[in-house]
Amino acid sequence: MLSDDEVAHIHHEAKRLLQQYGMKVLLPEAREIYRAGGALVDGDMVRIPTEVVDDALALAPPEVHVGAPDPAKAITFGGRHVNFLPVGGPPFVSDLDNGRRPGTLEDYENFVRLFQGIDVLHANTPFIEAQDIPVDIRHLATMRSQLTLTDKPAFLFTRGRQRVFDMFEMLRIRHGLAEDEFIDTPIVWANINTNSPRQLDIPMALGIIDFARAGQVCSMTPFTLAGAMAPVSLAGALLLQHAEAVAAITLAQLTRAGAPVIYGGFTSNVDLRSGSPAFGTPEAIKGAVVSGQLARLIGVPWRSSGSSASTIEDAQGAWETMFNLQGAIRGGANLILHSAGWQEGGLVASFEKLILDTEILQTIVESWQPVDMSEAELAFDAIAGVEPGGHFFGEAHTLERFETAFYEPLVATRASFEQWVEEGELDARHRANAVWKQRLADYEQPPIDEAIATELDDFVNRRIAEGGAAPD
Amino acid sequence: MLSDDEVAHIHHEAKRLLQQYGMKVLLPEAREIYRAGGALVDGDMVRIPTEVVDDALALAPPEVHVGAPDPAKAITFGGRHVNFLPVGGPPFVSDLDNGRRPGTLEDYENFVRLFQGIDVLHANTPFIEAQDIPVDIRHLATMRSQLTLTDKPAFLFTRGRQRVFDMFEMLRIRHGLAEDEFIDTPIVWANINTNSPRQLDIPMALGIIDFARAGQVCSMTPFTLAGAMAPVSLAGALLLQHAEAVAAITLAQLTRAGAPVIYGGFTSNVDLRSGSPAFGTPEAIKGAVVSGQLARLIGVPWRSSGSSASTIEDAQGAWETMFNLQGAIRGGANLILHSAGWQEGGLVASFEKLILDTEILQTIVESWQPVDMSEAELAFDAIAGVEPGGHFFGEAHTLERFETAFYEPLVATRASFEQWVEEGELDARHRANAVWKQRLADYEQPPIDEAIATELDDFVNRRIAEGGAAPD
Repeated sequence: MLSDDEVAHIHHEAKRLLQQYGMKVLLPEAREIYRAGGALVDGDMVRIPTEVVDDALALAPPEVHVGAPDPAKAITFGGRHVNFLPVGGPPFVSDLDNGRRPGTLEDYENFVRLFQGIDVLHANTPFIEAQDIPVDIRHLATMRSQLTLTDKPAFLFTRGRQRVFDMFEMLRIRHGLAEDEFIDTPIVWANINTNSPRQLDIPMALGIIDFARAGQVCSMTPFTLAGAMAPVSLAGALLLQHAEAVAAITLAQLTRAGAPVIYGGFTSNVDLRSGSPAFGTPEAIKGAVVSGQLARLIGVPWRSSGSSASTIEDAQGAWETMFNLQGAIRGGANLILHSAGWQEGGLVASFEKLILDTEILQTIVESWQPVDMSEAELAFDAIAGVEPGGHFFGEAHTLERFETAFYEPLVATRASFEQWVEEGELDARHRANAVWKQRLADYEQPPIDEAIATELDDFVNRRIAEGGAAPD
Repeated sequence: MLSDDEVAHIHHEAKRLLQQYGMKVLLPEAREIYRAGGALVDGDMVRIPTEVVDDALALAPPEVHVGAPDPAKAITFGGRHVNFLPVGGPPFVSDLDNGRRPGTLEDYENFVRLFQGIDVLHANTPFIEAQDIPVDIRHLATMRSQLTLTDKPAFLFTRGRQRVFDMFEMLRIRHGLAEDEFIDTPIVWANINTNSPRQLDIPMALGIIDFARAGQVCSMTPFTLAGAMAPVSLAGALLLQHAEAVAAITLAQLTRAGAPVIYGGFTSNVDLRSGSPAFGTPEAIKGAVVSGQLARLIGVPWRSSGSSASTIEDAQGAWETMFNLQGAIRGGANLILHSAGWQEGGLVASFEKLILDTEILQTIVESWQPVDMSEAELAFDAIAGVEPGGHFFGEAHTLERFETAFYEPLVATRASFEQWVEEGELDARHRANAVWKQRLADYEQPPIDEAIATELDDFVNRRIAEGGAAPD
C-alpha cells in the first residue's frame, strides 16, 4: 500500500510528534518511568526524545508466545502466525430467541463454551460485559469462567491494579505455577486502549506497567477513528495511531526491557451521515494494510480486527466483517480481534453472528491449505476413463475421496429452492441460531485438576467475601 | 498457490490428455479445422498433438480490447486490468416485491438499466433469460435492448450461427461500421462453455469459429464442477479445465491466427449433501488462484466469477460472492463474471443482490486507491493543534475534507440501533430494494443517433417478421 519511504516517513513524523508535543499521561507512576528513561515531563505532559523511542523499540521482542492451560493450545504472535480471536467487550448480547439485551454472566459463559468448541478461534477475549455481576467482583467471576470453561490462552481487562493482581493470582493457580514462575511465563494477554488523541489514562498506564513487570502480553491499540478522535484524513489517523502505539510500547520497555508487546491498529472512519464508527470500509482496509507495514518496520507483532457496524446479521454484517478481516490478513496481522460475533460497532455480541463469522474464518483457513498435486489427485487416468460428456459421480476415484474431498460447511446450505422452502425458508441467521444451540448442548468442559479447581474457588470466594477490588 | 513447476506440470498433463485421449467434437466443421491444423480425427474424437497446441497458444494475443457504443467505456482484458461484470444467464429473477419468478424481457431491460448506472460494472452479460419472448426471436429483442439501453461493451450468446450473424449485424449498425470494418473491430464478447468432460457441442463450436473469423472475443470456460463433471480432487478438476480451455483456444487459433480469446476458469465443487454446485468454497478460491497461474503461463487474459449458492440475499449470499471475488482477484482475473446479482447457483438473478454486491465491488475498488501521503493529509499540525483527549470534529482540517474524505455507502447503514428501529428495522436486503427502485426511477437512457435507432428497429422488425432464427 505504501512505499518503504512512506512508511519510514510516518514513523519519523510520529517520533517528531512525541518529541515536540508528546502525550498526556495521567498516572504519576508512568510519568516517573518515562522521566527516568529520558523523557521530558512537564505537568501531565510527557515529551519523548526520538533516541529514547528508538532504544525502547529495539528492546521489544519480534515474537511473543502465550501459554494455555492446554499446552497444545499455546499460541504465537509474530512472524507469519495468524490468530483469530472472537468478539470482545460489548455491553449487549443478542440472539434470535431473546433479542438484544444487556449481557449477563450466563451469556458470558455461553460465549466461552461456544468459543472452546471452535478450533479456528485461538484465544480468549473479554467476550461481553457480565452486567449482572457487580463491577468490583466481576473480574473474579469472569476469570473463573475463563479458567474452567476453556483451556485456551486467557485475556484480562486492565481495569485497576488490584483486579489485575487478583487475576494474575488466579492464572498462577490455574497453571500450577510457583509465584516466581508466573513472572516471564506469558499466559495472558491484555488490550490497552490509548485515550486518543494523545492521552494515556490511569488504568491503561497501570496495565502496561503491571504487565511489563510480570512479563505478560500487552497489545497497545489506539482507537483512532478518522474524523472523530483522529484526523479525518487516513494518513493523519495512521500517524496519530502510530505515535500513540509507539508511546505505549516505549512505556512498557522503559518499565522492563524486553516486555512482550503487540502493536495495535484499529484505525477506521466515522460514518458521514450518523457520526457513528464505520467498519469494513475502504479506509479501514487500507488502514489495516498500512498498520501492518508500520508494525513490521518497528519489528513487533501486530493486532487488527474484524468488525461490523450492522445492527443485524445480514449481508452488510457479513461483508463488513470480511472486509476488515481481509485488510487484517493482507496486512499480515498476527492477532485479529473481533473476528467473530462483533456487531453494531462493538455494542453487541451476537450469538448468531459468532457462528456465521466462524464459517467465514473456517473458509479462509481452509483456502490456505495447499493444493495436493500428487498424481492420484491430478487424476489423469480417472479423466481418461470417463467418456466425453459423461460424469464422475460413480467413479472409484470419486467414491474413494468424496467424504473428505471438500470443506463441509457449518451453516451454509446448497439445498434446492424447493427443499429450502420445505425446510422453512430459513436464512443463514436463522440456521446459525440452531447451530449455536446445538453446540451449546454438545459442549464438553475441558479437564481440570480437582485440587486446582478447589484452590481457584477458594480464592474467588475469599476475594468476593473481601468485597473484590475497586478501580484505581 | 502452486509453484511454477506445478503449474507447468498441469499444462504438460493437459497437453498429454489432448494428445492421447483428445476431445469429442460434435461439429463436423470444427473437426475439419482441427484436422487441417494437424490434429488426428477419429469419428467424433479429436486428438491434438502437443506441438499443434503449443503453436496455437503462441498465436493468442495477451491482451484483448472490446469497444463500446460510448468509446470512453471500452475495456481491456489482460495484464493488470480487472473488469467486473454482472450476473449472466439465470432463468429466474427475484425481487422483494414480486418474489422468485421466470424472467421476462421487462426484467432483462430493468437489469440493463440498473447496470448502465453502476460504474463499477464494465460490460454486458446475458443478464437473465427473457422467457416471455419466443426463443427464435429472443436474441433480436435482447440485443436491441442492450444496444439502446446501455452504451457499455456488448455480450451475445452463441446459440446458433444465424442468431450470431443477426446480432453481429445489429452490432455493426449500432457502431456505425461498414461490413468490412466489423471484422477485427472487437465490440462484443461471448462465453463458450465446453460440455465437460471433454466434449465440445455444436453451438459452442460454431461460436468459437464465427467469433474467431470476425475477430470478436470468446471466453472459453469449462464448467468443471469437482465431483460431478470433473474429478472430485481439485488438482484433477483443474487439469480437466485446463485441457478443455486449451482445446477451445486451439480451435479459435486454427480458425484464424491471432483470434482474441480469454481463458475461462469456473472450477468449483459440488455440495456433499445435496449434490448441487457450491460457490464461495475454499476449493473455489484455490481453483481461481491456480486458474490465474495457468492463464498467465499460456499468456492469455482470463475470466473468473463471483457466485453464490444461497437462496436468499443473506449473510451466506454475501460471503460466498465475496470469497469467489477474492479468489478471482487474488488470481489476477481480468474478467469477473457474475460479480453482482448471481444467486442460487445461477438459477436466479436478484435485483436486491445486484445492489448489495455493487456495494461490495465499490468497496473493493475504493480500497485499491492509494493513500494520499501529502503533508496536508498527514496532518501533523492538525494533530498537534488538538489537545490530548479532545476530538477533531470541529477542526478546520476536518471540515475542509469531511464531505469527500470517505467512501459513501450505497446501502450500508451505521444508524444507531434506536434510529434503525425507528426506520423500520430494515436489513440490507430490504434497504437494497429501495435503492434499485430509486435507481430505476432515475435511469437515463444514453444518447443514440436517431438514424441508427431506426435502422436497428427496421432490422429487428424485419427479422422478427421472417420468423427469427432457429438453433443449429
